[in-house]
Amino acid sequence: MIGVYDSGYGGLTVLRALRAALPTHDFVYLGDSGRAPYGGRDTDTILDFAEQCVERLFEEGCPVVVVACHTVSCVALRHLQRRYGGAHRRVLGVTIPAAEAAVAESRGHIGVIGTTRTVSSGTFAAEVAKLGAHRVTQRAAPLLAPIVEEGWADTEIAHLAVARYVEELGDIDTLVLGCTHYPLLRPAFLAALPPGVALLDPAPFVAARLADWLERHPEVLEPGGSIPTIPRASAGSLRILCTGEPANFRAHGELFLGEPLPIVAHVAEEGGRLAHKDRVEVRLGQVVR
Amino acid sequence: MIGVYDSGYGGLTVLRALRAALPTHDFVYLGDSGRAPYGGRDTDTILDFAEQCVERLFEEGCPVVVVACHTVSCVALRHLQRRYGGAHRRVLGVTIPAAEAAVAESRGHIGVIGTTRTVSSGTFAAEVAKLGAHRVTQRAAPLLAPIVEEGWADTEIAHLAVARYVEELGDIDTLVLGCTHYPLLRPAFLAALPPGVALLDPAPFVAARLADWLERHPEVLEPGGSIPTIPRASAGSLRILCTGEPANFRAHGELFLGEPLPIVAHVAEEGGRLAHKDRVEVRLGQVVR
Repeated sequence: MIGVYDSGYGGLTVLRALRAALPTHDFVYLGDSGRAPYGGRDTDTILDFAEQCVERLFEEGCPVVVVACHTVSCVALRHLQRRYGGAHRRVLGVTIPAAEAAVAESRGHIGVIGTTRTVSSGTFAAEVAKLGAHRVTQRAAPLLAPIVEEGWADTEIAHLAVARYVEELGDIDTLVLGCTHYPLLRPAFLAALPPGVALLDPAPFVAARLADWLERHPEVLEPGGSIPTIPRASAGSLRILCTGEPANFRAHGELFLGEPLPIVAHVAEEGGRLAHKDRVEVRLGQVVR
Repeated sequence: MIGVYDSGYGGLTVLRALRAALPTHDFVYLGDSGRAPYGGRDTDTILDFAEQCVERLFEEGCPVVVVACHTVSCVALRHLQRRYGGAHRRVLGVTIPAAEAAVAESRGHIGVIGTTRTVSSGTFAAEVAKLGAHRVTQRAAPLLAPIVEEGWADTEIAHLAVARYVEELGDIDTLVLGCTHYPLLRPAFLAALPPGVALLDPAPFVAARLADWLERHPEVLEPGGSIPTIPRASAGSLRILCTGEPANFRAHGELFLGEPLPIVAHVAEEGGRLAHKDRVEVRLGQVVR
């Protein structure tokens, strides 16, 4: 079973690519929607949340966890890998596959667009620098994820906002979508980009890298054996957990996954870990404690 | 000294109205910019942050604290008042003044627009219901605060987004700006609203209510005496604290306050309270702990 962790809905676009590349594998997705967005959070809080989510996925039976969120991958991946890495479990991110794909595609000037936190981390540029002498121009696009979440990806508002951000990237030849919400803005990006500029969604490259890694480490998913080539009865199953309101997550998530979601289970923080909860506590109006 | 607490920059538009109405009073503003936005936070976290901020303002020497943020005022005000209320200190919010002003202005159908959290709380509608039989139509506008923070209030994007939100409010006769960022979108709202619909920024009503309250409770600011009518030497002073990066806050805040900000002091969480800090810890790239 493969775990996919995201701060909310966006990682469902990565899950979509992972399931397309690995259709016989079982997945568990955890969206930390109750505590999203992570952008304004201090670093220690992001590390705390990331630890809780990754540990929940290990407990769900996933020895491999993909951190689908670019913000978490840029800030906390090395911490997660040091804390949880080992022969029998692994945490993988999206930044290195994105950097590799960009360097392979680009003729010399890569643009990247993402959340404020992703851009300020400088992690994508640092990964590109390890691979060659490409120039990297970054731009934070704090409005784009909210536009997608509002369901306005196809509006003139989305087109104008994307055009404005793209304009500031100058003479790039490749644009990396450094946030998992942005694939839903693909038509707006294609309309805004000058001819000849490649638009790169890292998700399929993340999937290809995971498939390659699983090929080389069959013992992780099937201790003592190789990855079964014949699908099992449960093959291709999908379970979804979220920290927010599960019915909302299920309704809203379809836009990102591209197909209806199964029933979504609720998990919530309890004594520093994420535990399964039957009841979602909703407190409206004035709250007194 | 009067304290003004906000989750970030927006409350500076309220501070502006407060200083205009009470020019001889000294103010301390605390913007929790390092932990904003509060919208996606769970309720207990909002209560924790609000307690820390209000306590910091008490410690700064403010017996009266105005919660300028509509989200905090809608969710946590009653908690803060129960915890800290007393003869010699007071926490005031923005929701009741906004509801009173709306009822006084409206011919029967009030619209209100704010953050998702403000709208889902239902607190504004509950306050209106206490005052009469007005109908209230609410709409969450999650894109508008980010548009203002991006500095795009005067763009076509802002006008289109405002028009779209306003359209969904139907045949209201009064629109309440239920988020402290929205006064910066005034031209877009005026362009979008049908003729005859009143646009209501609660800030001057919050200021008038505070002035009235101070008139009736002179002992709070000047124990044993009345509010001095002759300005003191320090009259009209302003100090600003924030939990984020203070230089950024100072540069960015001018847009909201309408004049340059004084030097901004930095406070950060330490053992469950906000303490003054000389150094802002910035950790970029991958973080390992």
